[in-house]
Amino acid sequence: MAAREIIKTHPHPISVDRETLLRCIDDCFDCAVTCTGCADACLAEDDVRDLVRCIRLCLDCADACTATGRIVTRQTEPDLGVIAATLEACALACRASGDECERHAHHHEHCNICAATCRRCEQSCNDLLAAIG
Amino acid sequence: MAAREIIKTHPHPISVDRETLLRCIDDCFDCAVTCTGCADACLAEDDVRDLVRCIRLCLDCADACTATGRIVTRQTEPDLGVIAATLEACALACRASGDECERHAHHHEHCNICAATCRRCEQSCNDLLAAIG
Amino acid sequence: MAAREIIKTHPHPISVDRETLLRCIDDCFDCAVTCTGCADACLAEDDVRDLVRCIRLCLDCADACTATGRIVTRQTEPDLGVIAATLEACALACRASGDECERHAHHHEHCNICAATCRRCEQSCNDLLAAIG
Amino acid sequence: MAAREIIKTHPHPISVDRETLLRCIDDCFDCAVTCTGCADACLAEDDVRDLVRCIRLCLDCADACTATGRIVTRQTEPDLGVIAATLEACALACRASGDECERHAHHHEHCNICAATCRRCEQSCNDLLAAIG
Repeated sequence: MAAREIIKTHPHPISVDRETLLRCIDDCFDCAVTCTGCADACLAEDDVRDLVRCIRLCLDCADACTATGRIVTRQTEPDLGVIAATLEACALACRASGDECERHAHHHEHCNICAATCRRCEQSCNDLLAAIG
Repeated sequence: MAAREIIKTHPHPISVDRETLLRCIDDCFDCAVTCTGCADACLAEDDVRDLVRCIRLCLDCADACTATGRIVTRQTEPDLGVIAATLEACALACRASGDECERHAHHHEHCNICAATCRRCEQSCNDLLAAIG
Repeated sequence: MAAREIIKTHPHPISVDRETLLRCIDDCFDCAVTCTGCADACLAEDDVRDLVRCIRLCLDCADACTATGRIVTRQTEPDLGVIAATLEACALACRASGDECERHAHHHEHCNICAATCRRCEQSCNDLLAAIG
Repeated sequence: MAAREIIKTHPHPISVDRETLLRCIDDCFDCAVTCTGCADACLAEDDVRDLVRCIRLCLDCADACTATGRIVTRQTEPDLGVIAATLEACALACRASGDECERHAHHHEHCNICAATCRRCEQSCNDLLAAIG
Protein backbone atom coordinates (compact mmCIF):
# COMPACT_ATOMS: atom_id res chain seq x y z
CA MET A 1 0.00 0.00 0.00
CA ALA A 2 1.11 3.53 -0.81
CA ALA A 3 0.08 4.46 2.74
CA ARG A 4 3.22 2.67 3.99
CA GLU A 5 5.38 4.98 1.90
CA ILE A 6 3.52 8.10 3.04
CA ILE A 7 4.23 7.38 6.73
CA LYS A 8 7.96 7.06 5.97
CA THR A 9 8.09 10.48 4.34
CA HIS A 10 6.34 12.42 7.11
CA PRO A 11 8.46 15.43 8.14
CA HIS A 12 8.32 14.45 11.82
CA PRO A 13 9.68 11.17 13.19
CA ILE A 14 6.89 8.89 14.42
CA SER A 15 6.87 8.12 18.09
CA VAL A 16 5.92 4.44 18.00
CA ASP A 17 7.32 1.31 16.39
CA ARG A 18 6.73 1.85 12.69
CA GLU A 19 5.83 -1.72 11.80
CA THR A 20 3.20 -1.90 14.58
CA LEU A 21 1.68 1.36 13.35
CA LEU A 22 1.66 0.31 9.69
CA ARG A 23 0.06 -3.03 10.49
CA CYS A 24 -2.70 -1.26 12.43
CA ILE A 25 -3.37 1.18 9.55
CA ASP A 26 -3.48 -1.66 7.00
CA ASP A 27 -5.71 -3.83 9.16
CA CYS A 28 -8.17 -1.02 9.98
CA PHE A 29 -8.75 -0.25 6.31
CA ASP A 30 -8.88 -3.94 5.36
CA CYS A 31 -11.37 -4.61 8.14
CA ALA A 32 -13.50 -1.59 7.13
CA VAL A 33 -13.92 -2.87 3.58
CA THR A 34 -14.31 -6.52 4.66
CA CYS A 35 -17.07 -5.66 7.16
CA THR A 36 -18.79 -3.50 4.53
CA GLY A 37 -18.66 -6.47 2.15
CA CYS A 38 -19.79 -9.00 4.75
CA ALA A 39 -22.78 -6.86 5.81
CA ASP A 40 -23.71 -6.56 2.13
CA ALA A 41 -23.30 -10.31 1.45
CA CYS A 42 -25.38 -11.15 4.57
CA LEU A 43 -28.11 -8.84 3.27
CA ALA A 44 -28.32 -10.92 0.08
CA GLU A 45 -28.58 -14.29 1.88
CA ASP A 46 -31.87 -16.18 2.10
CA ASP A 47 -31.48 -16.42 5.87
CA VAL A 48 -31.00 -12.66 6.28
CA ARG A 49 -33.33 -12.69 9.31
CA ASP A 50 -30.77 -14.83 11.15
CA LEU A 51 -28.01 -12.42 10.18
CA VAL A 52 -29.50 -9.16 11.49
CA ARG A 53 -27.13 -8.93 14.45
CA CYS A 54 -24.19 -9.81 12.18
CA ILE A 55 -25.10 -7.03 9.71
CA ARG A 56 -25.51 -4.45 12.46
CA LEU A 57 -22.20 -5.27 14.15
CA CYS A 58 -20.37 -5.33 10.79
CA LEU A 59 -21.74 -1.86 9.98
CA ASP A 60 -20.55 -0.59 13.38
CA CYS A 61 -17.15 -2.21 12.89
CA ALA A 62 -16.76 -0.67 9.42
CA ASP A 63 -17.49 2.78 10.87
CA ALA A 64 -15.14 2.29 13.83
CA CYS A 65 -12.32 0.99 11.62
CA THR A 66 -12.72 3.84 9.10
CA ALA A 67 -12.46 6.49 11.83
CA THR A 68 -9.63 4.68 13.63
CA GLY A 69 -7.66 4.11 10.42
CA ARG A 70 -7.81 7.84 9.67
CA ILE A 71 -6.93 8.91 13.21
CA VAL A 72 -3.90 6.60 13.59
CA THR A 73 -2.65 7.54 10.09
CA ARG A 74 -2.19 11.15 11.26
CA GLN A 75 1.28 11.74 12.77
CA THR A 76 1.10 15.51 13.28
CA GLU A 77 0.50 16.70 16.86
CA PRO A 78 -1.19 13.54 18.10
CA ASP A 79 -3.18 13.39 21.35
CA LEU A 80 -2.22 10.01 22.77
CA GLY A 81 -5.24 9.83 25.08
CA VAL A 82 -7.61 10.18 22.12
CA ILE A 83 -5.66 7.61 20.11
CA ALA A 84 -5.64 5.09 22.96
CA ALA A 85 -9.39 5.40 23.60
CA THR A 86 -10.09 5.16 19.85
CA LEU A 87 -8.00 1.98 19.57
CA GLU A 88 -9.77 0.44 22.58
CA ALA A 89 -13.21 1.17 21.09
CA CYS A 90 -12.12 -0.19 17.71
CA ALA A 91 -10.71 -3.39 19.24
CA LEU A 92 -14.06 -3.93 21.01
CA ALA A 93 -16.03 -3.31 17.79
CA CYS A 94 -13.79 -5.83 16.00
CA ARG A 95 -14.28 -8.37 18.78
CA ALA A 96 -18.08 -8.02 18.75
CA SER A 97 -18.23 -8.28 14.98
CA GLY A 98 -15.70 -11.14 14.90
CA ASP A 99 -17.60 -13.12 17.58
CA GLU A 100 -20.90 -12.77 15.73
CA CYS A 101 -19.37 -13.59 12.32
CA GLU A 102 -17.80 -16.70 13.84
CA ARG A 103 -21.27 -17.98 14.79
CA HIS A 104 -22.17 -17.99 11.08
CA ALA A 105 -18.76 -19.04 9.73
CA HIS A 106 -19.79 -22.64 9.00
CA HIS A 107 -22.82 -21.49 6.96
CA HIS A 108 -21.36 -18.51 5.17
CA GLU A 109 -17.81 -18.26 3.89
CA HIS A 110 -17.95 -14.43 3.93
CA CYS A 111 -18.58 -14.60 7.68
CA ASN A 112 -15.64 -16.98 8.06
CA ILE A 113 -13.32 -14.58 6.22
CA CYS A 114 -14.72 -11.56 8.04
CA ALA A 115 -14.28 -13.20 11.46
CA ALA A 116 -10.58 -13.77 10.75
CA THR A 117 -10.13 -10.19 9.48
CA CYS A 118 -11.83 -8.78 12.58
CA ARG A 119 -9.58 -10.89 14.86
CA ARG A 120 -6.48 -9.63 13.06
CA CYS A 121 -7.59 -6.01 13.33
CA GLU A 122 -8.51 -6.43 17.01
CA GLN A 123 -4.98 -7.76 17.62
CA SER A 124 -3.33 -4.93 15.64
CA CYS A 125 -5.31 -2.30 17.57
CA ASN A 126 -4.30 -3.91 20.87
CA ASP A 127 -0.65 -4.13 19.74
CA LEU A 128 -0.58 -0.43 18.84
CA LEU A 129 -2.30 0.38 22.12
CA ALA A 130 0.46 -1.49 23.99
CA ALA A 131 3.13 0.28 21.92
CA ILE A 132 1.88 3.80 22.74
CA GLY A 133 1.66 2.66 26.36
CA MET B 1 -34.07 16.94 12.29
CA ALA B 2 -35.79 14.06 10.54
CA ALA B 3 -33.50 11.74 12.48
CA ARG B 4 -35.60 12.41 15.59
CA GLU B 5 -38.68 11.09 13.80
CA ILE B 6 -36.85 8.01 12.52
CA ILE B 7 -35.86 6.90 16.02
CA LYS B 8 -39.51 7.15 17.15
CA THR B 9 -40.69 4.84 14.34
CA HIS B 10 -38.14 2.04 14.93
CA PRO B 11 -39.94 -1.31 15.27
CA HIS B 12 -38.17 -2.09 18.56
CA PRO B 13 -38.48 0.05 21.68
CA ILE B 14 -35.20 1.81 22.51
CA SER B 15 -33.57 0.83 25.75
CA VAL B 16 -32.36 4.24 26.95
CA ASP B 17 -33.95 7.60 27.68
CA ARG B 18 -35.04 8.84 24.27
CA GLU B 19 -34.21 12.51 24.80
CA THR B 20 -30.66 11.68 25.98
CA LEU B 21 -30.16 9.51 22.90
CA LEU B 22 -31.56 12.10 20.47
CA ARG B 23 -29.42 14.86 21.96
CA CYS B 24 -26.31 12.71 21.51
CA ILE B 25 -27.17 11.92 17.87
CA ASP B 26 -27.84 15.59 17.10
CA ASP B 27 -24.70 16.78 18.85
CA CYS B 28 -22.44 14.18 17.19
CA PHE B 29 -23.53 15.23 13.69
CA ASP B 30 -23.43 18.94 14.58
CA CYS B 31 -19.92 18.53 16.02
CA ALA B 32 -18.76 16.55 12.97
CA VAL B 33 -19.73 19.34 10.58
CA THR B 34 -18.54 22.12 12.91
CA CYS B 35 -15.10 20.51 13.33
CA THR B 36 -14.89 19.97 9.56
CA GLY B 37 -15.68 23.67 9.09
CA CYS B 38 -13.30 24.85 11.81
CA ALA B 39 -10.38 22.81 10.42
CA ASP B 40 -11.12 24.31 7.01
CA ALA B 41 -11.39 27.88 8.33
CA CYS B 42 -8.11 27.43 10.29
CA LEU B 43 -6.44 26.27 7.08
CA ALA B 44 -7.37 29.58 5.41
CA GLU B 45 -6.01 31.78 8.25
CA ASP B 46 -2.74 33.71 7.89
CA ASP B 47 -1.49 32.15 11.14
CA VAL B 48 -2.17 28.58 9.97
CA ARG B 49 1.20 27.49 11.38
CA ASP B 50 -0.09 28.28 14.88
CA LEU B 51 -3.25 26.30 14.18
CA VAL B 52 -1.71 22.98 13.10
CA ARG B 53 -2.64 21.18 16.33
CA CYS B 54 -6.14 22.67 16.17
CA ILE B 55 -6.64 21.43 12.58
CA ARG B 56 -5.40 17.95 13.41
CA LEU B 57 -7.59 17.55 16.49
CA CYS B 58 -10.65 18.92 14.66
CA LEU B 59 -10.11 16.37 11.87
CA ASP B 60 -9.88 13.58 14.47
CA CYS B 61 -12.99 14.87 16.25
CA ALA B 62 -14.97 15.04 12.98
CA ASP B 63 -14.06 11.40 12.25
CA ALA B 64 -14.88 10.24 15.79
CA CYS B 65 -18.23 12.10 15.81
CA THR B 66 -19.22 10.76 12.38
CA ALA B 67 -18.60 7.15 13.44
CA THR B 68 -20.19 7.64 16.87
CA GLY B 69 -23.26 9.39 15.42
CA ARG B 70 -23.84 6.44 13.08
CA ILE B 71 -23.25 3.80 15.75
CA VAL B 72 -25.58 5.35 18.36
CA THR B 73 -28.27 5.97 15.71
CA ARG B 74 -28.57 2.21 15.18
CA GLN B 75 -31.13 0.63 17.57
CA THR B 76 -31.16 -2.92 16.18
CA GLU B 77 -29.25 -5.53 18.21
CA PRO B 78 -26.87 -3.12 19.91
CA ASP B 79 -23.69 -4.25 21.70
CA LEU B 80 -23.59 -2.00 24.76
CA GLY B 81 -19.88 -2.56 25.38
CA VAL B 82 -19.03 -1.30 21.90
CA ILE B 83 -21.35 1.69 22.29
CA ALA B 84 -19.91 2.63 25.69
CA ALA B 85 -16.29 2.47 24.48
CA THR B 86 -17.22 4.44 21.35
CA LEU B 87 -18.88 7.16 23.45
CA GLU B 88 -15.85 7.36 25.76
CA ALA B 89 -13.47 7.75 22.83
CA CYS B 90 -15.72 10.36 21.23
CA ALA B 91 -16.00 12.35 24.48
CA LEU B 92 -12.18 12.39 24.71
CA ALA B 93 -11.83 13.50 21.07
CA CYS B 94 -14.33 16.31 21.75
CA ARG B 95 -12.45 17.35 24.87
CA ALA B 96 -9.07 17.46 23.11
CA SER B 97 -10.50 19.43 20.20
CA GLY B 98 -12.49 21.74 22.48
CA ASP B 99 -9.45 22.47 24.68
CA GLU B 100 -7.30 23.34 21.69
CA CYS B 101 -10.01 25.46 20.02
CA GLU B 102 -10.45 27.35 23.27
CA ARG B 103 -6.79 28.42 23.17
CA HIS B 104 -7.54 30.21 19.86
CA ALA B 105 -11.07 31.39 20.71
CA HIS B 106 -10.04 35.01 21.33
CA HIS B 107 -8.32 35.24 17.94
CA HIS B 108 -10.70 33.25 15.79
CA GLU B 109 -14.47 33.24 16.16
CA HIS B 110 -14.72 29.83 14.40
CA CYS B 111 -12.57 28.34 17.16
CA ASN B 112 -14.80 29.98 19.78
CA ILE B 113 -17.93 28.45 18.21
CA CYS B 114 -16.21 25.09 17.69
CA ALA B 115 -14.99 24.95 21.31
CA ALA B 116 -18.58 25.39 22.55
CA THR B 117 -19.89 22.75 20.13
CA CYS B 118 -17.22 20.27 21.21
CA ARG B 119 -18.08 20.88 24.90
CA ARG B 120 -21.75 20.25 24.20
CA CYS B 121 -21.01 17.01 22.32
CA GLU B 122 -18.60 15.83 25.03
CA GLN B 123 -21.38 16.35 27.59
CA SER B 124 -23.99 14.57 25.44
CA CYS B 125 -21.69 11.58 24.95
CA ASN B 126 -21.04 11.41 28.69
CA ASP B 127 -24.78 11.72 29.42
CA LEU B 128 -25.63 8.85 27.09
CA LEU B 129 -22.77 6.82 28.56
CA ALA B 130 -24.29 7.34 32.04
CA ALA B 131 -27.76 6.42 30.73
CA ILE B 132 -26.67 3.10 29.25
CA GLY B 133 -24.95 2.32 32.57
CA MET C 1 -26.72 24.16 13.91
CA ALA C 2 -23.34 25.54 14.93
CA ALA C 3 -22.20 24.74 11.40
CA ARG C 4 -24.16 27.78 10.19
CA GLU C 5 -22.11 30.03 12.45
CA ILE C 6 -18.82 28.46 11.36
CA ILE C 7 -19.45 29.25 7.68
CA LYS C 8 -20.11 32.92 8.57
CA THR C 9 -16.76 33.24 10.35
CA HIS C 10 -14.60 31.75 7.58
CA PRO C 11 -11.71 34.14 6.75
CA HIS C 12 -12.56 34.07 3.03
CA PRO C 13 -15.88 35.22 1.60
CA ILE C 14 -17.88 32.32 0.19
CA SER C 15 -18.52 32.38 -3.52
CA VAL C 16 -22.12 31.16 -3.62
CA ASP C 17 -25.41 32.23 -2.10
CA ARG C 18 -24.96 31.54 1.60
CA GLU C 19 -28.48 30.32 2.32
CA THR C 20 -28.34 27.81 -0.56
CA LEU C 21 -25.02 26.51 0.74
CA LEU C 22 -26.18 26.25 4.34
CA ARG C 23 -29.36 24.43 3.36
CA CYS C 24 -27.32 21.89 1.40
CA ILE C 25 -24.93 21.31 4.33
CA ASP C 26 -27.85 20.88 6.77
CA ASP C 27 -29.75 18.57 4.45
CA CYS C 28 -26.74 16.37 3.65
CA PHE C 29 -26.05 15.71 7.33
CA ASP C 30 -29.76 15.26 8.13
CA CYS C 31 -30.12 12.82 5.23
CA ALA C 32 -26.99 10.91 6.28
CA VAL C 33 -28.36 10.25 9.76
CA THR C 34 -31.93 9.62 8.53
CA CYS C 35 -30.75 7.05 5.97
CA THR C 36 -28.55 5.40 8.61
CA GLY C 37 -31.62 5.20 10.88
CA CYS C 38 -33.97 3.97 8.14
CA ALA C 39 -31.56 1.20 7.06
CA ASP C 40 -31.33 0.16 10.71
CA ALA C 41 -35.11 0.24 11.25
CA CYS C 42 -35.66 -1.77 8.04
CA LEU C 43 -33.20 -4.36 9.32
CA ALA C 44 -35.38 -4.86 12.42
CA GLU C 45 -38.64 -5.31 10.49
CA ASP C 46 -40.27 -8.74 10.08
CA ASP C 47 -40.38 -8.22 6.31
CA VAL C 48 -36.65 -7.42 6.07
CA ARG C 49 -36.40 -9.62 2.95
CA ASP C 50 -38.67 -7.18 1.11
CA LEU C 51 -36.52 -4.27 2.27
CA VAL C 52 -33.11 -5.44 1.06
CA ARG C 53 -32.95 -2.94 -1.81
CA CYS C 54 -34.14 -0.18 0.53
CA ILE C 55 -31.40 -0.97 3.07
CA ARG C 56 -28.69 -1.07 0.41
CA LEU C 57 -29.72 2.23 -1.18
CA CYS C 58 -30.04 3.93 2.23
CA LEU C 59 -26.51 2.79 3.12
CA ASP C 60 -25.21 4.20 -0.18
CA CYS C 61 -27.10 7.45 0.36
CA ALA C 62 -25.73 7.83 3.91
CA ASP C 63 -22.18 7.41 2.57
CA ALA C 64 -22.75 9.84 -0.33
CA CYS C 65 -24.34 12.47 1.95
CA THR C 66 -21.56 12.18 4.56
CA ALA C 67 -18.86 12.76 1.93
CA THR C 68 -20.81 15.51 0.16
CA GLY C 69 -21.65 17.30 3.42
CA ARG C 70 -17.95 17.41 4.33
CA ILE C 71 -16.83 18.51 0.86
CA VAL C 72 -19.34 21.36 0.51
CA THR C 73 -18.64 22.54 4.07
CA ARG C 74 -15.04 23.32 3.08
CA GLN C 75 -14.67 26.88 1.71
CA THR C 76 -10.88 27.01 1.34
CA GLU C 77 -9.52 26.66 -2.22
CA PRO C 78 -12.49 24.77 -3.64
CA ASP C 79 -12.36 22.90 -6.96
CA LEU C 80 -15.76 23.65 -8.48
CA GLY C 81 -15.61 20.71 -10.92
CA VAL C 82 -15.17 18.27 -8.03
CA ILE C 83 -17.95 19.93 -6.05
CA ALA C 84 -20.38 19.88 -8.99
CA ALA C 85 -19.75 16.18 -9.75
CA THR C 86 -20.07 15.33 -6.04
CA LEU C 87 -23.41 17.15 -5.81
CA GLU C 88 -24.69 15.38 -8.93
CA ALA C 89 -23.75 11.96 -7.55
CA CYS C 90 -25.31 12.81 -4.18
CA ALA C 91 -28.55 14.02 -5.79
CA LEU C 92 -28.77 10.71 -7.69
CA ALA C 93 -28.11 8.68 -4.53
CA CYS C 94 -30.87 10.64 -2.76
CA ARG C 95 -33.27 10.07 -5.64
CA ALA C 96 -32.61 6.30 -5.75
CA SER C 97 -33.00 5.99 -1.99
CA GLY C 98 -36.06 8.28 -1.93
CA ASP C 99 -37.78 6.34 -4.74
CA GLU C 100 -37.24 3.01 -3.02
CA CYS C 101 -38.30 4.32 0.42
CA GLU C 102 -41.46 5.71 -1.16
CA ARG C 103 -42.44 2.20 -2.29
CA HIS C 104 -42.51 1.16 1.38
CA ALA C 105 -43.88 4.42 2.79
CA HIS C 106 -47.39 3.08 3.37
CA HIS C 107 -46.09 0.08 5.35
CA HIS C 108 -43.30 1.69 7.30
CA GLU C 109 -43.39 5.20 8.72
CA HIS C 110 -39.55 5.35 8.82
CA CYS C 111 -39.52 4.87 5.03
CA ASN C 112 -42.13 7.62 4.68
CA ILE C 113 -39.98 10.04 6.69
CA CYS C 114 -36.79 8.95 4.95
CA ALA C 115 -38.35 9.40 1.47
CA ALA C 116 -39.22 13.02 2.30
CA THR C 117 -35.76 13.68 3.73
CA CYS C 118 -34.09 12.23 0.62
CA ARG C 119 -36.30 14.40 -1.64
CA ARG C 120 -35.34 17.51 0.33
CA CYS C 121 -31.63 16.68 0.14
CA GLU C 122 -31.85 15.89 -3.59
CA GLN C 123 -33.43 19.33 -4.12
CA SER C 124 -30.82 21.10 -1.98
CA CYS C 125 -27.97 19.42 -3.89
CA ASN C 126 -29.52 20.43 -7.20
CA ASP C 127 -30.07 24.00 -5.95
CA LEU C 128 -26.43 24.33 -4.90
CA LEU C 129 -25.36 22.80 -8.21
CA ALA C 130 -27.39 25.48 -10.05
CA ALA C 131 -25.91 28.20 -7.81
CA ILE C 132 -22.27 27.26 -8.51
CA GLY C 133 -23.14 27.30 -12.22
CA MET D 1 -6.71 -7.93 1.11
CA ALA D 2 -9.49 -9.95 2.69
CA ALA D 3 -11.92 -7.77 0.74
CA ARG D 4 -10.98 -9.69 -2.40
CA GLU D 5 -12.11 -12.93 -0.77
CA ILE D 6 -15.37 -11.40 0.45
CA ILE D 7 -16.41 -10.36 -3.07
CA LYS D 8 -15.84 -13.92 -4.30
CA THR D 9 -18.16 -15.38 -1.64
CA HIS D 10 -21.11 -13.03 -2.24
CA PRO D 11 -24.31 -15.09 -2.77
CA HIS D 12 -25.11 -13.25 -6.02
CA PRO D 13 -22.83 -13.27 -9.05
CA ILE D 14 -21.32 -9.85 -9.69
CA SER D 15 -22.32 -8.16 -12.91
CA VAL D 16 -18.97 -6.66 -13.94
CA ASP D 17 -15.48 -7.95 -14.61
CA ARG D 18 -14.28 -9.07 -11.19
CA GLU D 19 -10.66 -7.94 -11.56
CA THR D 20 -11.73 -4.42 -12.63
CA LEU D 21 -14.04 -4.21 -9.62
CA LEU D 22 -11.44 -5.49 -7.16
CA ARG D 23 -8.80 -3.09 -8.44
CA CYS D 24 -11.20 -0.19 -7.98
CA ILE D 25 -12.06 -1.25 -4.41
CA ASP D 26 -8.37 -1.66 -3.51
CA ASP D 27 -7.38 1.64 -5.09
CA CYS D 28 -10.20 3.63 -3.47
CA PHE D 29 -9.19 2.48 0.02
CA ASP D 30 -5.48 2.90 -0.71
CA CYS D 31 -6.11 6.41 -2.04
CA ALA D 32 -8.29 7.31 0.97
CA VAL D 33 -5.52 6.46 3.43
CA THR D 34 -2.76 7.95 1.26
CA CYS D 35 -4.61 11.26 0.89
CA THR D 36 -5.30 11.30 4.65
CA GLY D 37 -1.57 10.77 5.24
CA CYS D 38 -0.49 13.34 2.65
CA ALA D 39 -2.80 16.04 4.06
CA ASP D 40 -1.37 15.28 7.50
CA ALA D 41 2.25 15.34 6.31
CA CYS D 42 1.62 18.66 4.46
CA LEU D 43 0.22 20.10 7.68
CA ALA D 44 3.52 19.37 9.43
CA GLU D 45 5.70 20.99 6.73
CA ASP D 46 7.37 24.39 7.28
CA ASP D 47 5.84 25.64 4.03
CA VAL D 48 2.29 24.65 5.04
CA ARG D 49 0.98 27.98 3.70
CA ASP D 50 2.01 26.88 0.18
CA LEU D 51 0.25 23.56 0.70
CA VAL D 52 -3.21 24.79 1.71
CA ARG D 53 -4.82 23.85 -1.62
CA CYS D 54 -3.07 20.48 -1.53
CA ILE D 55 -4.39 19.75 1.97
CA ARG D 56 -7.93 20.74 1.06
CA LEU D 57 -8.03 18.65 -2.11
CA CYS D 58 -6.50 15.63 -0.34
CA LEU D 59 -9.18 15.86 2.37
CA ASP D 60 -11.88 15.98 -0.33
CA CYS D 61 -10.29 13.05 -2.17
CA ALA D 62 -10.09 10.97 1.04
CA ASP D 63 -13.81 11.56 1.65
CA ALA D 64 -14.76 10.79 -1.96
CA CYS D 65 -12.66 7.60 -2.03
CA THR D 66 -14.03 6.37 1.32
CA ALA D 67 -17.64 6.77 0.13
CA THR D 68 -16.90 5.33 -3.33
CA GLY D 69 -14.97 2.37 -1.93
CA ARG D 70 -17.94 1.46 0.29
CA ILE D 71 -20.52 1.95 -2.47
CA VAL D 72 -18.70 -0.15 -5.10
CA THR D 73 -17.97 -2.88 -2.53
CA ARG D 74 -21.72 -3.50 -2.15
CA GLN D 75 -23.00 -6.08 -4.69
CA THR D 76 -26.58 -6.43 -3.44
CA GLU D 77 -29.28 -4.66 -5.52
CA PRO D 78 -26.98 -2.02 -7.02
CA ASP D 79 -28.31 1.13 -8.75
CA LEU D 80 -25.95 1.51 -11.71
CA GLY D 81 -26.80 5.19 -12.22
CA VAL D 82 -25.72 6.00 -8.66
CA ILE D 83 -22.56 3.94 -9.02
CA ALA D 84 -21.60 5.57 -12.33
CA ALA D 85 -22.09 9.12 -10.99
CA THR D 86 -20.16 8.23 -7.82
CA LEU D 87 -17.24 6.86 -9.86
CA GLU D 88 -17.21 9.99 -12.06
CA ALA D 89 -17.11 12.28 -9.04
CA CYS D 90 -14.38 10.17 -7.42
CA ALA D 91 -12.26 10.18 -10.59
CA LEU D 92 -12.52 14.00 -10.68
CA ALA D 93 -11.57 14.29 -7.00
CA CYS D 94 -8.55 12.03 -7.64
CA ARG D 95 -7.54 14.11 -10.66
CA ALA D 96 -7.77 17.43 -8.77
CA SER D 97 -5.81 16.03 -5.83
CA GLY D 98 -3.27 14.31 -8.11
CA ASP D 99 -2.69 17.48 -10.16
CA GLU D 100 -2.09 19.59 -7.07
CA CYS D 101 0.15 16.98 -5.40
CA GLU D 102 2.20 16.80 -8.59
CA ARG D 103 2.97 20.52 -8.30
CA HIS D 104 4.68 19.80 -4.96
CA ALA D 105 6.16 16.41 -5.90
CA HIS D 106 9.72 17.72 -6.34
CA HIS D 107 9.69 19.34 -2.87
CA HIS D 108 7.82 16.73 -0.90
CA GLU D 109 8.13 12.99 -1.39
CA HIS D 110 4.70 12.40 0.22
CA CYS D 111 3.13 14.54 -2.53
CA ASN D 112 5.03 12.54 -5.15
CA ILE D 113 3.70 9.26 -3.76
CA CYS D 114 0.19 10.68 -3.31
CA ALA D 115 0.10 12.02 -6.89
CA ALA D 116 0.87 8.53 -8.25
CA THR D 117 -1.75 6.93 -5.97
CA CYS D 118 -4.39 9.45 -7.06
CA ARG D 119 -3.59 8.78 -10.75
CA ARG D 120 -3.95 5.05 -10.20
CA CYS D 121 -7.30 5.45 -8.42
CA GLU D 122 -8.57 7.88 -11.09
CA GLN D 123 -7.73 5.24 -13.72
CA SER D 124 -9.38 2.42 -11.75
CA CYS D 125 -12.56 4.47 -11.29
CA ASN D 126 -12.66 5.24 -15.01
CA ASP D 127 -12.01 1.57 -15.86
CA LEU D 128 -14.90 0.42 -13.67
CA LEU D 129 -17.09 3.16 -15.13
CA ALA D 130 -16.33 1.84 -18.63
CA ALA D 131 -17.01 -1.74 -17.48
CA ILE D 132 -20.48 -0.98 -16.09
CA GLY D 133 -21.18 0.85 -19.36
